[in-house]
Amino acid sequence: MMVEVGSIVVVLLSLFSGVQGLPTRRSWATQSPSCGYESCPATKADALNVHLVPHTHDDVGWLKTVDQYFYGDRNDIQHAGVQYILDSVVQQLLSDPGKRFIYVETAFFYRWWRQQTESMREDVKTLVNQGRLEFINGGWCMNDEASTHYNAIIDQMTLGLRFLKDTFGDCGRPRVAWHIDPFGHSREQASLFAQMGFDGFFFGRLDYQDKIARMKQKEMELMWRGSASLTPPFADLFTGVLPNGYNPPPGFCWDQSCADTPIQDDVNLEDYNVDSIVSNFINIAHDQANMYKTNHIIMTMGSDFQYENANLWYKNMDKLIRYVNEQQKHGSNVSVFYSSPSCYLNELHQSNLTWSVKDDDFFPYADGPHDFWTGYFTSRPAFKRYERMSNNFLQICNQLEVLGGKSSREGPNGKGESDTLKEAMAVAQHHDAVSGTEKQHVANDYAKRLSKGWDQCQILVSNALSALSGNESPSIYCQHLNISVCPTSEELGTFSVTLYNPLVRRITWTVRLPVNGTQYSVTDPSGKVVDNEVVPVSNFTRDLRRDRGYAVNELLFQVSIPALGFSTYSVSRTGKIKNVPVRKPEKHDGHAAPLSIKNEFYKVTFDPLTGFLSEIQNLENMMTLPVTQNFYWYRASEGNEESIQPSGAYIFRPNSSQPMPVTKVAQTYTIQNSLVQEVYQNFSSWCSQVVRLYRGQPFLELEWTVGPVPDGDKVGKEIISRFDTKLETNGYFYTDANGREVLERRRDYRKTWPLKQTEPIAGNYYPVNSRIYIKDKKTQLTVLTDRSQGGSSITDGSLELMLHRRLLVDDNRGVGEPLSEPGEFNDGLVVRGRQLLFLSSPEDASALHRPQAQQEYLQPQILLYPLPSSKLGKLEFSAVQSELPLNVHLLTLGQWDANTVLLRLEHQFEKMESANYSQPATVDLQKLFSWFQIESLDELSLSANQRLSEMKRLAWRIKDAYSYNLKKKWTYGVGADPPVITLQPMEIRTFLIRIQFK
Amino acid sequence: MMVEVGSIVVVLLSLFSGVQGLPTRRSWATQSPSCGYESCPATKADALNVHLVPHTHDDVGWLKTVDQYFYGDRNDIQHAGVQYILDSVVQQLLSDPGKRFIYVETAFFYRWWRQQTESMREDVKTLVNQGRLEFINGGWCMNDEASTHYNAIIDQMTLGLRFLKDTFGDCGRPRVAWHIDPFGHSREQASLFAQMGFDGFFFGRLDYQDKIARMKQKEMELMWRGSASLTPPFADLFTGVLPNGYNPPPGFCWDQSCADTPIQDDVNLEDYNVDSIVSNFINIAHDQANMYKTNHIIMTMGSDFQYENANLWYKNMDKLIRYVNEQQKHGSNVSVFYSSPSCYLNELHQSNLTWSVKDDDFFPYADGPHDFWTGYFTSRPAFKRYERMSNNFLQICNQLEVLGGKSSREGPNGKGESDTLKEAMAVAQHHDAVSGTEKQHVANDYAKRLSKGWDQCQILVSNALSALSGNESPSIYCQHLNISVCPTSEELGTFSVTLYNPLVRRITWTVRLPVNGTQYSVTDPSGKVVDNEVVPVSNFTRDLRRDRGYAVNELLFQVSIPALGFSTYSVSRTGKIKNVPVRKPEKHDGHAAPLSIKNEFYKVTFDPLTGFLSEIQNLENMMTLPVTQNFYWYRASEGNEESIQPSGAYIFRPNSSQPMPVTKVAQTYTIQNSLVQEVYQNFSSWCSQVVRLYRGQPFLELEWTVGPVPDGDKVGKEIISRFDTKLETNGYFYTDANGREVLERRRDYRKTWPLKQTEPIAGNYYPVNSRIYIKDKKTQLTVLTDRSQGGSSITDGSLELMLHRRLLVDDNRGVGEPLSEPGEFNDGLVVRGRQLLFLSSPEDASALHRPQAQQEYLQPQILLYPLPSSKLGKLEFSAVQSELPLNVHLLTLGQWDANTVLLRLEHQFEKMESANYSQPATVDLQKLFSWFQIESLDELSLSANQRLSEMKRLAWRIKDAYSYNLKKKWTYGVGADPPVITLQPMEIRTFLIRIQFK
Repeated sequence: MMVEVGSIVVVLLSLFSGVQGLPTRRSWATQSPSCGYESCPATKADALNVHLVPHTHDDVGWLKTVDQYFYGDRNDIQHAGVQYILDSVVQQLLSDPGKRFIYVETAFFYRWWRQQTESMREDVKTLVNQGRLEFINGGWCMNDEASTHYNAIIDQMTLGLRFLKDTFGDCGRPRVAWHIDPFGHSREQASLFAQMGFDGFFFGRLDYQDKIARMKQKEMELMWRGSASLTPPFADLFTGVLPNGYNPPPGFCWDQSCADTPIQDDVNLEDYNVDSIVSNFINIAHDQANMYKTNHIIMTMGSDFQYENANLWYKNMDKLIRYVNEQQKHGSNVSVFYSSPSCYLNELHQSNLTWSVKDDDFFPYADGPHDFWTGYFTSRPAFKRYERMSNNFLQICNQLEVLGGKSSREGPNGKGESDTLKEAMAVAQHHDAVSGTEKQHVANDYAKRLSKGWDQCQILVSNALSALSGNESPSIYCQHLNISVCPTSEELGTFSVTLYNPLVRRITWTVRLPVNGTQYSVTDPSGKVVDNEVVPVSNFTRDLRRDRGYAVNELLFQVSIPALGFSTYSVSRTGKIKNVPVRKPEKHDGHAAPLSIKNEFYKVTFDPLTGFLSEIQNLENMMTLPVTQNFYWYRASEGNEESIQPSGAYIFRPNSSQPMPVTKVAQTYTIQNSLVQEVYQNFSSWCSQVVRLYRGQPFLELEWTVGPVPDGDKVGKEIISRFDTKLETNGYFYTDANGREVLERRRDYRKTWPLKQTEPIAGNYYPVNSRIYIKDKKTQLTVLTDRSQGGSSITDGSLELMLHRRLLVDDNRGVGEPLSEPGEFNDGLVVRGRQLLFLSSPEDASALHRPQAQQEYLQPQILLYPLPSSKLGKLEFSAVQSELPLNVHLLTLGQWDANTVLLRLEHQFEKMESANYSQPATVDLQKLFSWFQIESLDELSLSANQRLSEMKRLAWRIKDAYSYNLKKKWTYGVGADPPVITLQPMEIRTFLIRIQFK
Repeated sequence: MMVEVGSIVVVLLSLFSGVQGLPTRRSWATQSPSCGYESCPATKADALNVHLVPHTHDDVGWLKTVDQYFYGDRNDIQHAGVQYILDSVVQQLLSDPGKRFIYVETAFFYRWWRQQTESMREDVKTLVNQGRLEFINGGWCMNDEASTHYNAIIDQMTLGLRFLKDTFGDCGRPRVAWHIDPFGHSREQASLFAQMGFDGFFFGRLDYQDKIARMKQKEMELMWRGSASLTPPFADLFTGVLPNGYNPPPGFCWDQSCADTPIQDDVNLEDYNVDSIVSNFINIAHDQANMYKTNHIIMTMGSDFQYENANLWYKNMDKLIRYVNEQQKHGSNVSVFYSSPSCYLNELHQSNLTWSVKDDDFFPYADGPHDFWTGYFTSRPAFKRYERMSNNFLQICNQLEVLGGKSSREGPNGKGESDTLKEAMAVAQHHDAVSGTEKQHVANDYAKRLSKGWDQCQILVSNALSALSGNESPSIYCQHLNISVCPTSEELGTFSVTLYNPLVRRITWTVRLPVNGTQYSVTDPSGKVVDNEVVPVSNFTRDLRRDRGYAVNELLFQVSIPALGFSTYSVSRTGKIKNVPVRKPEKHDGHAAPLSIKNEFYKVTFDPLTGFLSEIQNLENMMTLPVTQNFYWYRASEGNEESIQPSGAYIFRPNSSQPMPVTKVAQTYTIQNSLVQEVYQNFSSWCSQVVRLYRGQPFLELEWTVGPVPDGDKVGKEIISRFDTKLETNGYFYTDANGREVLERRRDYRKTWPLKQTEPIAGNYYPVNSRIYIKDKKTQLTVLTDRSQGGSSITDGSLELMLHRRLLVDDNRGVGEPLSEPGEFNDGLVVRGRQLLFLSSPEDASALHRPQAQQEYLQPQILLYPLPSSKLGKLEFSAVQSELPLNVHLLTLGQWDANTVLLRLEHQFEKMESANYSQPATVDLQKLFSWFQIESLDELSLSANQRLSEMKRLAWRIKDAYSYNLKKKWTYGVGADPPVITLQPMEIRTFLIRIQFK
């Protein structure tokens, strides 16, 4: 049953506090009367009102690390010191009640706050309560939108906003989202912001053609519909494009980092310039007003790391305001004043205009005909994977911090916590972090922070598992399984393997461990022997290991892990150790008969001449699709006569539209046994792939290894994996946004303006966070990725993903380094990853790829114990009474404070996507968990910084085709009486619960 | 009679207030109890006390103009904005009573002060009264020491110190002189500072060999004896060489312009570095202490235009102080605190050590073996001349502002004032102004400021002369007489010429005006006809004029002008206008008989083969000296294998020790008549000279014209005029310091350390501000210059002066431009100047060159009126009853405030220099002036910011040979009962007088 979300809210709210005896928590809405919109400056109805917004844009790492930026270290690289910015701005605000400032990045503010005296903290609270220091956006960072996953976006926003809320109360709750620098904008980001309660959103970068069209048509401000599934206006977000990126108008940058002339108003000195500056400003204001609809305009008075010496800015702006407003006496209608994005937004809202609606996104971003920022979709692929794995581990860490209770943080393995990884993950979401557009030393720093977070969470996870199992033995994490290195499994004859499953449904998983034995016995938690196989470690992998491990074989066995719980398996070596592989792989040369592998779901065939994948057959529905897959590389441009633009960390610009195949013939061999069917393809010395079907696995797995990409020929290379089919796709393909909703893409086309395509490859690339597909009426080929990548469909029936990039020159967007990752051995980075292929009808596809994508990003965590399982206490555990329906996902389960837990449940299907699963889903929260019971429950906004019942977003008039009843008292969420809740397609519901362990 | 100056003071002071009924003015010594030495931080007797001195060094123009620096305009050239520095520092001081700062350049402080609110001014006064904002040095600028004239130094110091005194009272009186950046240090500067009441002096730059020797010998601090004439300790100045120039120790620069790592003391963040920074600092402190004598050391924590964001500095220094002093708990004996140069000086004084005495100077300055900063002695020769002329006109303007009374500032010629020229002159004394080491556009700005000052003073002077003469006709200034351009004299048949003489003795002067007539009648103020001659304008001059004038002839006549007064002469054309010269000059080729010219004093002979000067004969004493004079050029180095150092604006580095002669034969012709004897020498298309003897002129004048120096051959050239004689000079020569006392120089030698000479030319150059001479026992050849130049004696009997420089590359000292002045027509600057030669016995020399040098720098001012003198009221005027003795000079006569006048009288001879004139001189002030009478009189320090009776300088123990009685209550000046005053050789006495016009 489809429940119209808004319609039942009014009833619900009145019932809420009494339901099931769950008391509500104290209201957070202790709003000071003077912050928020009420604190906004007076404006003039008959004037052109110019809102000056003093702001700084502080990258949470880019050319320097986040701590270098905070302290102002390494100013030889870039002059920037955030500690001083906050010192300086606060001093300015304290000394003059007329001034305002906005601050955005909580990662920095939090560092600063910790160092302040109590007296300074009180002063700052006063400023916040007066609305003069206003937090905008308020996430830990200003996250990237192209390569981030929604789970991590929500977490990083929650972390930042929580700090502000905890520190400043509701006056510390940002009203406006502010992504002034990210390089393109995702529709999912808009949807998430809307669900977080933001009233509006401003950004600075959009395609230059789009911007020109919008300026002409006065469409710089609009309503952005963030979701095709959620009922409007729940995911609608008022969105404004800023006039000058996020910079001041030309000539008006008064930061110490600029060289614009200051206002020189002493008539006794040389260079008096008040008159010329005032008239220039008034002209600029009128020009800008011509591109916007109301008599209010916004000017962003700041830029990267500005306001380190705020006096320069304010002193000159004070003069500007005084002298420009003095011109009103002489007939000027320009009124200029200090303001903020929220105050500007409030004026737009009060204009009561009707705004048009946009329902696509702002990708890809180009700032010139040959300058498409589509390279960073793939840049630093290893870091992009590490970030995704870290999110996986953080969710497990969060869950186990709840399930394991207090002893998870201090237990037999020592003290552990989740904050380090939370902060490291939040920092990694920055738009120069996971985006791959930072300097190498900064990328190293991000990875180091994550690694430190892992260290802490590993202790916590081990403690929690000890608590849950009653086993206090130390556990071992094998972090190099991707290159078949794990000293414990390699060396011990007997050990146990515990797998924790963060999903709320039982899963089957194939464990693969490096070993040196040839025969093993594996038993499940009940002591039952399970099948296992031993296969040789491939040469591909041996090459990567270098001196880090010597395992010759890999042990495979399938495990079954209960929902939100763990299983422990016991492994014993039964045969002797041999330094030779147990079974020789079957080699194939180019003239053998067609090779194929299959399992219960797929049969996959390879071309005997080329060794390439040639056909996939779905054995369930007998659907067959000829598919050729190969690796290619685009030769990176270093600039040409058309444009000096090279390909670089940000920009993708191939020299030619025709990529070069890595090889015309792949060398192959197979391994086939009861658990796995594998074809090993060697494309070149730096490119290989394993095509794999595990028993019971409903998809085809392609494990690719690329690198070191050769650069001895002085040619930058961008490596893609391409699938060519005969599907009649007519230019269409589909990519997800941040791992959630899927957007339709069309080659050489933009929905809202007539595109002049100038880069036929780069201009058609889109972010692929988790999946991309092509389809015709009957057949859909879906690829899940294990990290964010760039992808496209350059010709009909074709689908490509960019895997790796090695470039020789910088692309002139500031990072100042060519993207040529050294890798662990300084000879170029090797990257390994997985693509999961599904062949299905379009109707069936989501039921396949949605749960599998969930399982990809929240894989089970494997721990080893150097003991037989008999010594490990409880061998199986589940924290739930019942599994969640397949369309419902436990997005968040994490400790909030000593007594409360944050819980997010999500409907993971889109509307109309699946006949079975795109239906509302109902969950009885009290019947979900077995390990604890819920004592009280508050429903919160998505970002958990507001009670949902108190969340009141501004309502906007929008054009007819999209409109909804403005007068209706719509409110968010709450589909049924808690604790029995209903989730609509793509809905996320956020609860703060008080739990009691049973 | 030689009166021992100090001995009669005690008597005098008790008599002072009653003498002649002159009341004393109110005491200025309303000193707040907490400023000065009393406000200094507590130190520890048993610790190594590190005085951190937060400071900024703000050039009053260099790469940017003074106003650009003040406002922070043109930050594209250099980031620097003094308004923000003062904003920022004051804010820091106000927010924390533990902090201190010193400020130096009053030209900037004054600009800032004018823009402050009354409340901010009160706050700043509090800071000054607490000694936390301390003015150091306090001149309008930090003047150059090599190319400045003492008159202008005194004026610029007086201007700056007066502002501080008027604004802040005695707490605004700097105790310490601070020339941290000037490129070498003049002994006269030390003498002047001592006489201004400074207790000590610190600087940063000295010869690198000298510095190494002093560090080894702990002679970085010493007593500098500034005068060989003044009785010690009147000109003794305690002097310290700073350890790191004026920069912080390496690694401790925390300004926004630096990139040293900040102190990172949050253990939760990366890069915690407190331990390493503290131990580094303690090591540096001990190392520094090893080079100084006491347990106090000073560290200059600042540099060029630093503290624009003072928070960066103070925040890190606060941490440094805290963490370093915390180490005392662990046995460290280093105590670090905020201090000031005066507080440091006070500790040195309290150490009661005995200091050695230095009585030479710190020229030339070299910062490396091939890096002698001796080029700037000559750089920008035209500006150096314009500055000297401007001083001349300013003194006249000052005098006439007094003599003309109120109507001088507002009279028939409009409103005029002297402040503009005073400030422009003060700015021009800066060590990157008259030094010639600024960028071209800044040099232009300095000239423009002077020109605006001239405009104002011209009005004032005209008004004053109107008031004194009763003539209200508009006067005309002919500012291009040096190229024979003056429309009034060229066009009018009848006009008058008024000449004002700023000296207090009657002078004779030859007027030379461009005319087109051939016959003129000239009458003196009494109507008596005086001789005149008409001569053709030389081709040399015609070439320079281009389209600015067409006079074919010049009218010459001699005038006599009374002391401190004027004479007006009337001129009428009697013959017809002809466009041809009246008398053809007599041409000479290379084979004529010896050519000679002569007047009453000299006979000068030229070599018939070369056309060069070959012999000078003094007709009074029949002394004859063969002298060859020619022009040469050094080929400028652009760096070589020994050193990359090129010759540039600062540095002089010739490529070879052998200069190239401009020519081997000069073309000559003569003009000889009753008033003048001239030999015109043409050396090349860009080098010519007129050798001239006017009637009654006791010296030989050489008027040289050099430029545009050709650069088409891509060779930088440095042009010298060289005199070669057979005098047996044994390596010695003599140059003046700032136009006052003369120092003995010795080739390839320094008095205080064994010089390793590495640049045989540049390393022997010294500043010549007004005179240079060589001599043997019997004969002295003295050259007076009309501006500051570099000079030397490279071989025995030889004397050279560098006239002009045109260079093709920058010399890497920051100015970033090659010194290649474009000149008015952008083809290279042409410079014209004069050298005056004296041939005499050593004993007689000073009686000749001292008065003549005085007359050179204070020439009469010429004004024209387009009327016959019969219509011009009073034609002759003198403001004095009697002339001053030849050894006494009216150094200053200027309006101080509405009712008072500043008067300085100076003994202009050195001790033992002249049998006649090196005697004490007595002046009865009440009998000096006729135009007004002196109603009251206060004797002040030289800088006029303290009553002399209240001036108490710190007394220091010095080594025996130089010592004086420390216990004696010595006080300055006052040689006899005012108003009858006595002046000792080289003594300057400064009075504030209240006058009443008679």
